[in-house]
Amino acid sequence: MSEKQIEERNQRHSARMQRKKAVVDQHIAEAQIERGVLVVNTGNGKGKSSSAFGVVARALGHGMKVAVIQFIKGRSDTGEEGFFRRFPDLVSWHVMGDGFTWDTQDRDKDEARAQEAWALAARYLADPAYALVVLDEFTYPLKYGWQPLAPVLEVLAARPPLQHVIITGRAAPPDLIAAADTVSEINQVKHSFVAGVKAMPGLEW
Amino acid sequence: MSEKQIEERNQRHSARMQRKKAVVDQHIAEAQIERGVLVVNTGNGKGKSSSAFGVVARALGHGMKVAVIQFIKGRSDTGEEGFFRRFPDLVSWHVMGDGFTWDTQDRDKDEARAQEAWALAARYLADPAYALVVLDEFTYPLKYGWQPLAPVLEVLAARPPLQHVIITGRAAPPDLIAAADTVSEINQVKHSFVAGVKAMPGLEW
Repeated sequence: MSEKQIEERNQRHSARMQRKKAVVDQHIAEAQIERGVLVVNTGNGKGKSSSAFGVVARALGHGMKVAVIQFIKGRSDTGEEGFFRRFPDLVSWHVMGDGFTWDTQDRDKDEARAQEAWALAARYLADPAYALVVLDEFTYPLKYGWQPLAPVLEVLAARPPLQHVIITGRAAPPDLIAAADTVSEINQVKHSFVAGVKAMPGLEW
Repeated sequence: MSEKQIEERNQRHSARMQRKKAVVDQHIAEAQIERGVLVVNTGNGKGKSSSAFGVVARALGHGMKVAVIQFIKGRSDTGEEGFFRRFPDLVSWHVMGDGFTWDTQDRDKDEARAQEAWALAARYLADPAYALVVLDEFTYPLKYGWQPLAPVLEVLAARPPLQHVIITGRAAPPDLIAAADTVSEINQVKHSFVAGVKAMPGLEW
């Protein structure tokens, strides 16, 4: 590139970045409400639960108390559980499923377990000491009808005003999405599993 | 529901779960390769970086060493950084940008910084002691051409065989997606910011 071309490129860069900055600054100026946010991470791709666990780390960095209720996962040897259990003063971690649901094949048992897990979650959702409540893979009991949605929406709406909630899992019900503030749909473009790679410790569990 | 209807529903549930279990079991049996996985979290939605930070917690739970290089974010008061810096034996955390790029408006400076950050990343990508390397918001220097992609793909391909890498950011280049093992596209369905809610500590930073 000639010096003139470089100069023109730099001017284009500067103009583009100034426009971006103006847009971002305006959004920041407008967004001034402070309240708890209801987040839903749904879709078929990887990262719904790990995104919630990243926010757990973020909240702990601010000294906040966190509750995690895992509705489905049965294994108790995950890296995230082992790690976050090291902070018992700040983290309450509950694994409520005792296996992937398609391992039990007993609907009444699945339903009873899901409702027990929800009753526990509802206690945290009434406790303002908890700044963040993660309901991991909660969409499955909702989807299969083991836990009705209406009382869930009531409890979420009545929770402490500054409490954040993250709900993860595929196929989030439309009424839950309507009630949420932030919804990400995580789509799978590729998965190493399909190429024959095992679920690797430290990455997948 | 009558008892007969309940019985039928339970049989349908059991049959469905048995089919799911068969599919999952077959995939697990087939996926036996053990190697480092290259993950790309892209798209315009929330959760690309926090998903990577969740995997950092997961890796720490297995006692693995982790390096995080943040290519863009300038603020040094994020919850995740404060939290993970408490584990200096296992976590190397580098914030290489000194502000959102559209705050600097100086292309040569942005380019020099991006290349400095990449040189640092390349050192971790040659070190088998690190089980996980996170290149946070690395797609932006690639997208803006501050860092050419070809040498990046070479270094990624030549990295230690069991090392996992997670690259985050919008608009991942197609050649990077082609080289990756697992790619999630995170789409924004809703964002609390649009409804006027501030970026909340413990949730957004």
